[in-house]
Amino acid sequence: MVQIGDLGERQLIEDFKSFIRPEGRVGPGDDAAVIGKDIVVTTDVVTFERHFPIGMTYEQFGWYAAAVNFSDLAAMGARPIGFTAALALPPTLDSQNAYDIMSGIDQCAEFCGTGIVGGDTKNGPGIVAGTAIGSMDGRAPMLRSGAKPGDIVAVTGPLGGPAAGYAAIENDLDCPEAKETLFMPVPRVAEGMTLAESGIVSSCIDLSDGLGTALNTICRASGVGIDVEMSFLQHESYVDEISQKTGIPLERLLIGWGGEYELMFTADPNRLKKLYDSELEFSIIGMVNDSGKAELVKEGKRSTIEYGEY
Amino acid sequence: MVQIGDLGERQLIEDFKSFIRPEGRVGPGDDAAVIGKDIVVTTDVVTFERHFPIGMTYEQFGWYAAAVNFSDLAAMGARPIGFTAALALPPTLDSQNAYDIMSGIDQCAEFCGTGIVGGDTKNGPGIVAGTAIGSMDGRAPMLRSGAKPGDIVAVTGPLGGPAAGYAAIENDLDCPEAKETLFMPVPRVAEGMTLAESGIVSSCIDLSDGLGTALNTICRASGVGIDVEMSFLQHESYVDEISQKTGIPLERLLIGWGGEYELMFTADPNRLKKLYDSELEFSIIGMVNDSGKAELVKEGKRSTIEYGEY
Repeated sequence: MVQIGDLGERQLIEDFKSFIRPEGRVGPGDDAAVIGKDIVVTTDVVTFERHFPIGMTYEQFGWYAAAVNFSDLAAMGARPIGFTAALALPPTLDSQNAYDIMSGIDQCAEFCGTGIVGGDTKNGPGIVAGTAIGSMDGRAPMLRSGAKPGDIVAVTGPLGGPAAGYAAIENDLDCPEAKETLFMPVPRVAEGMTLAESGIVSSCIDLSDGLGTALNTICRASGVGIDVEMSFLQHESYVDEISQKTGIPLERLLIGWGGEYELMFTADPNRLKKLYDSELEFSIIGMVNDSGKAELVKEGKRSTIEYGEY
Repeated sequence: MVQIGDLGERQLIEDFKSFIRPEGRVGPGDDAAVIGKDIVVTTDVVTFERHFPIGMTYEQFGWYAAAVNFSDLAAMGARPIGFTAALALPPTLDSQNAYDIMSGIDQCAEFCGTGIVGGDTKNGPGIVAGTAIGSMDGRAPMLRSGAKPGDIVAVTGPLGGPAAGYAAIENDLDCPEAKETLFMPVPRVAEGMTLAESGIVSSCIDLSDGLGTALNTICRASGVGIDVEMSFLQHESYVDEISQKTGIPLERLLIGWGGEYELMFTADPNRLKKLYDSELEFSIIGMVNDSGKAELVKEGKRSTIEYGEY
């Protein structure tokens, strides 16, 4: 007998993927599945045990449980049309805390232009299984497999906030801005729709597992390489401060960590005017090539970017 | 502080309903929500603790976790287009058992004409949160609120099997047929689509919470009463046997219990030819009236039908 705890969660998810059938145009391996005519669906489980850092409120936990799912819709370019929340909560939980979780989910769904449309609750240790449903409205879904050598690589916002927030908690540092990005990630739903609408994006992924993992995932799915220029990785000044105070290299905070929910995308450099005209905020961090690997260029020196530790 | 365990699950679900927004034409209170143009979505949580009776296999547990969701789509008349499975499993679980759960989900989804399109897994005590997504394909969804006095009330199959199966387990009796109906309920997806397609159905609900609860739910949602004729309630002979051997009144097995997944519907009696022509199997169990309550007529005597105990 092999216990699933020995297999590890990643292996189990890999094994489970053999059961997933592409009912529509897009199957497992992307941020979400496309089914029916242009419906997009994704599910993610968050737990008190794993996703409830010190200082987070129940409302923020609810927001987080919804945000991780809406982020997957965002990465495909879908417009959210509904959210279902399946909860398994300890019977000893204060009912106010339970309502706060639902309120947090509701607020995040509203931010994403939709609402909670269904739910269920049973006894359990504190688990929220959310499912977000979206519509492509005729847009082509953005996949992980379309990046081409010569494309630019860009992200929709500054990096390293959640990693800095986590490091601040672990090291008992005060840095509310960093913690806020960890506790209440903003799903880039509007940005994802704009990107899909532009027609110039060749691949897209969210950064929930960190930049390093996202880069390697796109390289593998698209059969390309990517060069990232370290000096292009924008971040708030508190990320530098936390790096200095904790001794964690800035690189690790910006690349090696997860829990952040910006979108990373690749696009045709000759048609970027479309994106500039849309007033979408983004910053270019590198270029796609045919090297087959993700590399960081820092002061002219190259190093391999590994999958993240998150 | 009020612990949610003191509130009770039903109260908590009622309270949570205030967070549910009807994004489309149909909101909370029906078997599933209708969102977007004609997408139907529903979520249900099953747990090792509550839904894993003695003798059930892991594969059957997986089937069950999917079936309860597809049954909710069936009650609306939707065609399943996808299923997502969010799992929280003990790290000590034998990996073969985990794959068996996925296989059971997969088989049920295939039976319902679709497949698993996404999933997630984390550590937990043994919880499957399934979400089924369906399409109305232009059909009007069947609600709980449309029953009218004069309509017939009918069910899609024999009753009492799962209740008899549970009673057999509790009383250490051998009755594999009864246990089979408990372990592997058949979601009436094809029947639901036929009913919705017919255009003569005024309300529909599944019997997951038992006939008594279904009758009272339709009475309340539609503002009607229903008379059920005891002698019309079809059941397999083993239900009688289990009733005799255990001393549990037949009535209680047929009406007071849940865990069965036939559909109950009301329809215009003057247009039933449409259903007979469709070769749908169903049996009439009573009539809708304006009494405002659900009553059982047994050998000419009337008694009130209560909500079930499930």
